Amino acid sequence: MNTVDSILSGNRLTLSRLLTEVENETGAGKTALNELFTRSGRAHLIGVTGAPGTGKSSLVNRVVQLIRRERKLTVAIVAIDPSSPFTGGAILGDRVRMRDLAGDQGVFIRSMASRGELGGLARATAGIVQILDAAGYDLILIETVGAGQSEVDVARLAHTTIVVESPGMGDDIQAIKAGILEIADILVINKADMPGVENTERALRANLELGYSNRVNGKSGHGLFTETSIESSDEWIPPIIKTIAIEETGIPEVIVAINNHREYLQRTGLYQLRDRERLKNEFEHQLQHALMENWKSTSSPKAVADVLEEVFQRSRSPGNAVEQLVKKSN
Amino acid sequence: MNTVDSILSGNRLTLSRLLTEVENETGAGKTALNELFTRSGRAHLIGVTGAPGTGKSSLVNRVVQLIRRERKLTVAIVAIDPSSPFTGGAILGDRVRMRDLAGDQGVFIRSMASRGELGGLARATAGIVQILDAAGYDLILIETVGAGQSEVDVARLAHTTIVVESPGMGDDIQAIKAGILEIADILVINKADMPGVENTERALRANLELGYSNRVNGKSGHGLFTETSIESSDEWIPPIIKTIAIEETGIPEVIVAINNHREYLQRTGLYQLRDRERLKNEFEHQLQHALMENWKSTSSPKAVADVLEEVFQRSRSPGNAVEQLVKKSN
Repeated sequence: MNTVDSILSGNRLTLSRLLTEVENETGAGKTALNELFTRSGRAHLIGVTGAPGTGKSSLVNRVVQLIRRERKLTVAIVAIDPSSPFTGGAILGDRVRMRDLAGDQGVFIRSMASRGELGGLARATAGIVQILDAAGYDLILIETVGAGQSEVDVARLAHTTIVVESPGMGDDIQAIKAGILEIADILVINKADMPGVENTERALRANLELGYSNRVNGKSGHGLFTETSIESSDEWIPPIIKTIAIEETGIPEVIVAINNHREYLQRTGLYQLRDRERLKNEFEHQLQHALMENWKSTSSPKAVADVLEEVFQRSRSPGNAVEQLVKKSN
Repeated sequence: MNTVDSILSGNRLTLSRLLTEVENETGAGKTALNELFTRSGRAHLIGVTGAPGTGKSSLVNRVVQLIRRERKLTVAIVAIDPSSPFTGGAILGDRVRMRDLAGDQGVFIRSMASRGELGGLARATAGIVQILDAAGYDLILIETVGAGQSEVDVARLAHTTIVVESPGMGDDIQAIKAGILEIADILVINKADMPGVENTERALRANLELGYSNRVNGKSGHGLFTETSIESSDEWIPPIIKTIAIEETGIPEVIVAINNHREYLQRTGLYQLRDRERLKNEFEHQLQHALMENWKSTSSPKAVADVLEEVFQRSRSPGNAVEQLVKKSN
């Protein structure tokens, strides 16, 4: 049986191996991805992001456990483990995860290391999600630490984005995630039994109104081939849900919000629109990457370094350096 | 006299016209920029960023007035006027600016509208700054509203980045700017006579420690041709300076901090390193842009739309679409 058939028949080991190929962008990985992509498009993609210490992993675990218990849907979790000072938290999260979810054949967990190269993480994650989608998982949760552009890019892969907060962590932690509040469809305040929960809720609500108005005004729509902006009188107001993940408090409400959001997207046609937008973005990123790789493969590193040195010495402008190095094809 | 000579001899009208050409990326603009770039590299580039309402423009005005009064250095201000819900503030800022600085021949002010296209603003701003640099301005202040990736990109053009806060605006406003605290070299709490200044200072200090540790760990260094990370035992701890711009309180301290930072950069060799890093980034962005433009000029929009539609229908993967559209040159 070939790789694709093996994965479609539910072989988890083949799936794991292929994900590694895709993560490493090997030829075999690309070939299988090209074929499996045509079977994708069925899964509901859910991004979950939040700072370390918000209990994001525990929340994801509880949500997945409850979905498995009540609805029997299959679930894949893609956890982005950032190569940052915060990895301690991710390792701890993985331990908790193993205890909670290991042994359930309806759950597949994949950890990914984030990458140095700009856009590399988003590219690899897109492929991994498509394969899990083709493999038949009903829900795919993409868990990221919301601290940088890469994480925002990854969150943009999702149909539904959940941003996790927790109270009492001080303004510093609130602040980290501000860049992602704009993309939140659902806000969760986890550890809602901790002091300061009212302040967190107030701050989130204020942020939300600001972020929401930005989104409605189309601030995030600056792709190279941007379609007309999304307008709808049927507006989604991101709910703020208080949870205590370890007690399962609020977890049913999170699942209801996820379902409500999917229904909202489907009712308004935004589901398909977001899907197209996402695929177009992925296409653009891959196109930019391919053009750059193509160019690198045909240009001499020595010539590039020499021209760059002329720029550093200010005997040649960056624009002139590019003109010099890029041959016009027309 | 040609454009370049006219600008080098101090003609402000020619300068204004050329900046418009560069902003619109015309052929004439590119030609003049290529020539003028070789005369650049002398100015100290200072990014000033902060949310609307922090009094950022007034602060810039006071700093420039004091520099003009005490040091007689020439100053250019590049103000990025974002096409966002917040433009009201920028317009008000311009009125105050005109009253404070108009008529001083040693000050040149340029407003720029931000752009829809990703990277367009940073590209145009880089060119404008290089021309002002070549025109002989000693200090160039680049004023942006710190709310998005474009503004962060613009701030990265600078040798020295000042982030402006103000107290009593609530957590929502604090939060917007969190993404830029990482790139702050100097923090200013303006309107320091307002209540809540202690809270703002405490929040900033906490943020600063977090952001600083990220920077030292090289999180921002993910360019395509990244050099070895900057390490120095001679660490710069961003000072937090309280100002009341309208009374000129704290303004001399801001100027001292700007000078200290320039001396620090020069002493440690970071000045040259940041300069190279900046030019390399600009080169990379222009290269990506040129490769994409080049590709677009040789590809049929109909063919691209057709292949994209196949992706939307999931009969072809994004990667396969790119393979189909990009001819291998090797």
